[in-house]
Amino acid sequence: MKALIFDGQARLASDLSLPEPAPGEVRVRMILAGICNTDLEIVRGYAGFQGVLGHEFVGVVDQAEDQDLVGRRVVGEINIGCGSCRFCRAGVPEHCLSRLALGIRGRDGALAEFFCLPAANLLVVPDSVPDRAAVFAEPLAAACSVLERVHVRPADRVLVLGDGKLGLLTAQVLALTGCDLTAVGRHEENLAILAARGIDTRLAGAVAGDPPGALADVVVDCTGRPSGFQAAQRLVRPRGTIVLKSTYYGPIEADLSQFVVDEIRLVGSRCGPMDAALRLLAGQRVDVASLIRAEYSIDDAVAALEHAARPGALKVLVRGAAAD
Amino acid sequence: MKALIFDGQARLASDLSLPEPAPGEVRVRMILAGICNTDLEIVRGYAGFQGVLGHEFVGVVDQAEDQDLVGRRVVGEINIGCGSCRFCRAGVPEHCLSRLALGIRGRDGALAEFFCLPAANLLVVPDSVPDRAAVFAEPLAAACSVLERVHVRPADRVLVLGDGKLGLLTAQVLALTGCDLTAVGRHEENLAILAARGIDTRLAGAVAGDPPGALADVVVDCTGRPSGFQAAQRLVRPRGTIVLKSTYYGPIEADLSQFVVDEIRLVGSRCGPMDAALRLLAGQRVDVASLIRAEYSIDDAVAALEHAARPGALKVLVRGAAAD
Repeated sequence: MKALIFDGQARLASDLSLPEPAPGEVRVRMILAGICNTDLEIVRGYAGFQGVLGHEFVGVVDQAEDQDLVGRRVVGEINIGCGSCRFCRAGVPEHCLSRLALGIRGRDGALAEFFCLPAANLLVVPDSVPDRAAVFAEPLAAACSVLERVHVRPADRVLVLGDGKLGLLTAQVLALTGCDLTAVGRHEENLAILAARGIDTRLAGAVAGDPPGALADVVVDCTGRPSGFQAAQRLVRPRGTIVLKSTYYGPIEADLSQFVVDEIRLVGSRCGPMDAALRLLAGQRVDVASLIRAEYSIDDAVAALEHAARPGALKVLVRGAAAD
Repeated sequence: MKALIFDGQARLASDLSLPEPAPGEVRVRMILAGICNTDLEIVRGYAGFQGVLGHEFVGVVDQAEDQDLVGRRVVGEINIGCGSCRFCRAGVPEHCLSRLALGIRGRDGALAEFFCLPAANLLVVPDSVPDRAAVFAEPLAAACSVLERVHVRPADRVLVLGDGKLGLLTAQVLALTGCDLTAVGRHEENLAILAARGIDTRLAGAVAGDPPGALADVVVDCTGRPSGFQAAQRLVRPRGTIVLKSTYYGPIEADLSQFVVDEIRLVGSRCGPMDAALRLLAGQRVDVASLIRAEYSIDDAVAALEHAARPGALKVLVRGAAAD
C-alpha cells in the first residue's frame, strides 16, 4: 500500500505491506486525512517521530474482531494508553505516561491507504456528517478542549489570537458559548470565514492599542508563535486566563512575574473530546467546509504537505484509494 | 519621626514630619514591622518605588475619624484601590488598575514610626495574638492566597519548593489541608522548622531523582529563582497545577510547550485574605515565632535590611518607638 512517511525526509512509500491489526485492534481504510501543523513540525524534526504521518482521518473499518464494526465509517481518538498506569486507570489515556499517538509517537499514522487503531479508540460517524466534515473531528475536538479546561462564561470577554486552522475552529467553538468574542489574525481571507458567522474579527495590530477597559477575561493563543503568548499577556486582565494551544519548538523568553502580580492563570490545552466534536459537526454548529483549501490524492501526498506548509494555508486534505 | 526610606539607596530618615491622615484614613503608630523580599527587591530597583519602605506591620491606631478605632491594635490590607474601576466595584481592590500599595507603589510604607492607611484596610487583632505573631498577618495571607486560587484536595500530592519565609508559611498552610505534602529547600535549619510540625521535608536535589509515580498534583514555587520554575515543570504531573509565588526580575527562559502537551495549569498568586491569616494565628495553627531571626530598633533599620538580605535569612523585624 501507499503511505506518506517521514524517515528524515517526507516521502511517499508505495510498497508497504498491509498492516495487520493486533488483538483488540481494527484496520481502517482511509477515506480522507487532514494535514495538521503537528505534521509539519514533525517534518521539521519536532517530536523525533519516524514512520507514517497523519492523525486526522475519516475512514471505513476494513477488518475487526467485532464484525458489526466492519464497513462502518469512523473517526478515532489518536492517543493509545498503556491501560494500566494511573492516568489510564483514571480514564485519561491521552496523558498515559508511556502513551503512543497515531502518526505522532511510536505508531504509524493515517496518511496511508490503511492503518490500525484499537477498536476502543473508534467513534462511528453519523450518516448526516459528510466525509469532508468528519475529517475535522480531531482538530475540532482540540478546539473543544479549551472548554474542557476552562469555564468560559457567556458574559466573558474573550480573544482568540491566530487565524490558522486551529484559531478558526477555536473561535467558532467559543462563539457558541455566547461570549463577547473577538478573533485576531493576520489573514483577511481567513478572518472572513469567521466574519461570515457573525464573529467580530480584527487584523493583528488593531488590538494592541485597546484601552485597559477592554482587557479580556480569557485570551486563547492559537498563533503558534512566541509573540502570540506575549500579546496574550498584554491583553488579559488581572486574574484572567490565558489558554495556550500553541506549541513552540524550544524555550521562549517569558516574563512570568506578571502571572504573580496580576494573578493570571495559564492553562495548556491539547487534544479534546471527539464525541463533542461529532455532535457539533452533526448539528452543523461549526463551518469546516470553508477551511478546506485543497484535496490531493495519496499519490500526491508530498505535494499536499508542501501546500499545507504555505503561510496562511488552511486545511489540505489527502484522499485514500477508492473503495474496492 | 524616623523611617526607613529608599530614594536610590536605603537610609534612615530621622526628621520626617508626622503624616496627616486624609479623609477616611487613620494614622497608625507602628509596633513591629517585618522585612519582606519585596523590600529587598525594591532596594535593588525593582518596581521603581521611592519612599518609606515596609508593608508588613502590626500597630496601634493613633488618629482616626471613628474614635472607637483609636488605641486599637491593627494589621492592614496593603492595597489601596481607586474605589471606582471594575475591579474595585467587583470587590477586588487588590487588582485595581491604578492601585497604590503600602510601601510598594505610590504610598509611604510601614517601616516608620507612624504611617497612614484607609480605615477600610484595617483589621483589629484579637487580644490572643501577640505582636510578634500579628506582624506575620500579611505574609501569612499571601501563603493562604494559594488556597484562594487553587483547590488543593486532601488526597493531592503537593510539593512546596523553597524554604525561605514564604515557602515555610506556604508549606504550613497547605499542610493544614491534610494533603500529601513535601517541602523542598536548601537550608537544613529552615526545613527543620517544618519537620518539627510533622511536615515531610527534603533537601533540594533529592527530589530530582524521584520516579515518575511521584509526580505531584500541585507544585508551589516559592524559590524566587527561575530554576524553581523549571524544577516545578519537571515535578508536576500531566494536567497538574504549578502555583507561582515567586517573582523574578526580568524575563526567563521557559519551555511553554510542556504546558500544552501535558495540559498543565500555571496559576499566579500574590496577596491573600488577611482575615483568614488572623484566624490561623489566633488558632495557633501555624508556627511563625520560629521564623523570627532578629529584631532591630527603627534606629537600626538599615542594619535590619542588610540582615534580611543574607542568604537563607528568615524574618527580620523592626520595632517602632516605644508608646507614649
